[in-house]
Amino acid sequence: MTLAQARALDADDRLAVLRDRFVIPEGVIYLDGNSLGALPRAAAARQRELVEREWGERLIRSWNEAGWIDAPQRVGAKIARLIGARPHEVIVADSTSVNLFKLLVAAAALSDRPSLLTEAGNFHTDLHIASGAAALAGLSLDIVARREIETRIGPDTNLLLLTHVHYKSAERFDMAALTARAKEAGALTIWDLSHSAGAVPVWLNEHGAELAVGCGYKYLNGGPGAPAFLYVAEHLQERLVSPLRGWMGHAAPFAFTDDYVPAPGIARFLAGTPPVLGLAALESGLDTFDGVTINALWRKSVILFDFFRGLMAERCPGLACISPADHRARGSHISFRHPHAFEICQALIDAGVIGDFRAPDVLRLGLTPLYLRFEDVWRAVDICADILASERWREPRFAVRGRVT
Amino acid sequence: MTLAQARALDADDRLAVLRDRFVIPEGVIYLDGNSLGALPRAAAARQRELVEREWGERLIRSWNEAGWIDAPQRVGAKIARLIGARPHEVIVADSTSVNLFKLLVAAAALSDRPSLLTEAGNFHTDLHIASGAAALAGLSLDIVARREIETRIGPDTNLLLLTHVHYKSAERFDMAALTARAKEAGALTIWDLSHSAGAVPVWLNEHGAELAVGCGYKYLNGGPGAPAFLYVAEHLQERLVSPLRGWMGHAAPFAFTDDYVPAPGIARFLAGTPPVLGLAALESGLDTFDGVTINALWRKSVILFDFFRGLMAERCPGLACISPADHRARGSHISFRHPHAFEICQALIDAGVIGDFRAPDVLRLGLTPLYLRFEDVWRAVDICADILASERWREPRFAVRGRVT
Repeated sequence: MTLAQARALDADDRLAVLRDRFVIPEGVIYLDGNSLGALPRAAAARQRELVEREWGERLIRSWNEAGWIDAPQRVGAKIARLIGARPHEVIVADSTSVNLFKLLVAAAALSDRPSLLTEAGNFHTDLHIASGAAALAGLSLDIVARREIETRIGPDTNLLLLTHVHYKSAERFDMAALTARAKEAGALTIWDLSHSAGAVPVWLNEHGAELAVGCGYKYLNGGPGAPAFLYVAEHLQERLVSPLRGWMGHAAPFAFTDDYVPAPGIARFLAGTPPVLGLAALESGLDTFDGVTINALWRKSVILFDFFRGLMAERCPGLACISPADHRARGSHISFRHPHAFEICQALIDAGVIGDFRAPDVLRLGLTPLYLRFEDVWRAVDICADILASERWREPRFAVRGRVT
Repeated sequence: MTLAQARALDADDRLAVLRDRFVIPEGVIYLDGNSLGALPRAAAARQRELVEREWGERLIRSWNEAGWIDAPQRVGAKIARLIGARPHEVIVADSTSVNLFKLLVAAAALSDRPSLLTEAGNFHTDLHIASGAAALAGLSLDIVARREIETRIGPDTNLLLLTHVHYKSAERFDMAALTARAKEAGALTIWDLSHSAGAVPVWLNEHGAELAVGCGYKYLNGGPGAPAFLYVAEHLQERLVSPLRGWMGHAAPFAFTDDYVPAPGIARFLAGTPPVLGLAALESGLDTFDGVTINALWRKSVILFDFFRGLMAERCPGLACISPADHRARGSHISFRHPHAFEICQALIDAGVIGDFRAPDVLRLGLTPLYLRFEDVWRAVDICADILASERWREPRFAVRGRVT
């Protein structure tokens, strides 16, 4: 496969125009949109308007005038479209960790069953939050290997907590099958969509999913530390009460009453005052999906992945791909194992190819169809092949570890 | 008291130059800095740099390069100076509601005592969060009248939850006395500093306070929905474990291990990924306090309050002041009761005097010494007197209630 072939794929790509919706710096091939989405071009202007006019000029009046107070619902509805949910089933609030805690504790109260079941090697914040929620709810936290999940679902299972696309390997669970299996056994499933939303087709309603959380700053392009979202299927909303009974989830937040009455519907999962700056940036991020279907994005993602995987196998055989080849069984990023993955990642970044390292030995590269070109992917492999062939990654500066990697 | 006298007070005010650190719109007298602080002039440029350069150009690299990852501690240390705490005792995270939940649940576990004691009419998110935390921790939530708090502290008291300055009346508790009283009885006290931090002198260390939370978007000028802070006295930090065990509070967030090990010190109270946009705006807000002591601000606040209160008594006697006259017993805002407080508030806003209404019958006005002039305060009273004398507040448009008031 040649650069000319990559360029031909770009010329044929009907989604290629979407790249103009983003700021992509000169000299950078950005393969980390699964960690921090690129800056939407409209976000810069929107933040200026928000800060300088809405906050600066209109001050407190903007809570009503500028729709700040409705942002959690409005932005949630924009996410709903991307994950196969109805608009009133998704809301934006807090962080993924905090939202997961809310749903775990609220859902655990619906049953007397003793076990919270999840996967070993799940993204660790999910495991830690689950351990805290389990301790408070009086559940045992049962962490089992991926291949054992399905058989371990049983009559003692209260909740099943799964991350749809694995943050490291990109392995994807079969949402419909596992949700159905848990339901048959009488358990509820909570899906973490952090590495799915905006990248992989997710059909929460169609697949019978009842509870989910996810991240705003990855494929949704919401900016660093963007607020997160949660999903509760309509039929469950009135049965769940958040353990975080903040005023924004009250039925009448501005009545200032001592007693707690949860708001009807999804709003009861709000806690404190909405983070307006982050919500606005997330809304700009979601607006980059305007006029695009998740299926069209996924088709491009699959081709990008296969193209990249083929090229890497040919030119960088020393990097072992650990992501599934079958597109039905994976997400939108691709990961490789190498004993010196850290140093290779640093050398790539130094050469303008930005991916990330996941301990202990994984190089993780995001293939974001909204703004990546086939030419980018070709060049990234070319640069990687050069780094491996020249062993440039052995330069001592690439072994220096910072606090965040 | 005349406009000329007000101007003379401004001419003598050594803090008058601080107003230039803020954007105050033409034609507005802003008496709502206790609800949403005004825009710091530096915040607009800082947000542009953050969004356009750090996010847009440097992308994921900014977590290290631009100090995003350290912001919760760095910004926390800037708050510490304003509330009499040591830099490593304060951290910025989540919302006030969520932080309060963390401290309530963590602290409740230190004792077998059955009661969580708080004040009737406390800001309602505190009461609601307390009800959720009490339910999970197996405590009874005992809500008693303000005057009964002190006598109700006893051998059954596990936790005492108090808001230092009341959001409505501006009444201030004696932090030193009540903390000592609770300690004598063997109980821990959690202080909500939302209406104190940045306005009223608070000396957490000196007054023996061990736990506190507070808001970033009021007197700290952190922008709409700014992240909040929490304080844990050094000697308690290692004894408390947050119920929200997010990855950012882990001892090694980037080791990706299944087991939860809380970070040493205050960092264990972080949960999810820090809200970078909100943190940066809050940092700009805190930088408006550079070179100013909280005592100097408080001296001006007291004079502003007394000036305003005197003028209002003289010119608007129909509005009954419900805030304490004694400056040792109050905060920095001033509240008035009137059966038509809502309509009067709307008519004031229409005339450019922005305060807020608190149900059912309170007009609340913030007297923020960082950017208010005596002339502003004089003019606000003059406008209010005109609205009352002309009964202009009776115009039907001022009775229209929006969702947020």
